[in-house]
Amino acid sequence: MGERSGFILWFTGLSGSGKSTLTNHLAPRLRGLGLKVEVLDGDEVRENLSRGLSFSKEDRDINIRRIGFVANLLARNGVCAISAAISPYEAVRQEVRRRSEAPFIEVYVNAPLAVVEGRDVKGLYKRARAGEIPHFTGVSDPYEPPKAPELVVYTGQETVEESARKVLDYLRSRGLLPAG
Amino acid sequence: MGERSGFILWFTGLSGSGKSTLTNHLAPRLRGLGLKVEVLDGDEVRENLSRGLSFSKEDRDINIRRIGFVANLLARNGVCAISAAISPYEAVRQEVRRRSEAPFIEVYVNAPLAVVEGRDVKGLYKRARAGEIPHFTGVSDPYEPPKAPELVVYTGQETVEESARKVLDYLRSRGLLPAG
Repeated sequence: MGERSGFILWFTGLSGSGKSTLTNHLAPRLRGLGLKVEVLDGDEVRENLSRGLSFSKEDRDINIRRIGFVANLLARNGVCAISAAISPYEAVRQEVRRRSEAPFIEVYVNAPLAVVEGRDVKGLYKRARAGEIPHFTGVSDPYEPPKAPELVVYTGQETVEESARKVLDYLRSRGLLPAG
Repeated sequence: MGERSGFILWFTGLSGSGKSTLTNHLAPRLRGLGLKVEVLDGDEVRENLSRGLSFSKEDRDINIRRIGFVANLLARNGVCAISAAISPYEAVRQEVRRRSEAPFIEVYVNAPLAVVEGRDVKGLYKRARAGEIPHFTGVSDPYEPPKAPELVVYTGQETVEESARKVLDYLRSRGLLPAG
């Protein structure tokens, strides 16, 4: 009855894998279905909650815990909270999942390193290979794929619309979208 | 129609002035009226969003900005977000107010220093006077009273019930509580 329950939609994947593109495609669709949506974008959160933190493992973990803390506050109040941070470490993703009081949907945005590095939309991989960016995930820092994500989207071969549809279908199957 | 709009209820006052007591009294009453309520307690926020920050002016301001950022995310999604941090500096309180996309209700929890120091419920003032706690608001750090708060409660002379009633009456006058 009444209001929909919130949930956390947690995208994880390499830089350039398409997390933000998929988020920007999905967020208005979800709002169009009547959901409240907040996007906790990696860069925006670093600016507002984690300025001064580095990209060391310890600081990345702190940043991810903060995103998880805020996502949980939102989700337990009926909001669909979307995280689109790289979140490369399995242990802290699991910790955020355990602490979530709302459904936690982990979506592995799976594009091969060769593909995202080949595109290199922002030129970051080139700079990382040149040693200009330390702690760059996939180049000089690890990425640990999720062991049991709710969903995997293959953005190297799917269109953004195909990936978005998979997410929407999954959410519908979990009863997290309004009927009809 | 439908859902109520959220707002930020921002308590500010000295340590021991009664911010938390008033919050703990109000939060269940507001929930009982059908509102969604989240309390952003100073200590809890420091633990989850601001660990490692000091009590220097600069770090206090960062902490308050983070509380404001999260409170705004909640309030724009229909939640009554309550901040119960000391928040001693006027400029950053004004900044948080400006950034709020929802009604911002600043409540000055006004108890004289002599009164709160006389009670010294947690023994902190004694330790601060002994020089054991640096940057202690009211003792070795400034407290800047709000210049134009929406409401002032005088917790040195009012009961918590009287102060709570003033807050509820004010919220009702602003149309922020359900009718009836």
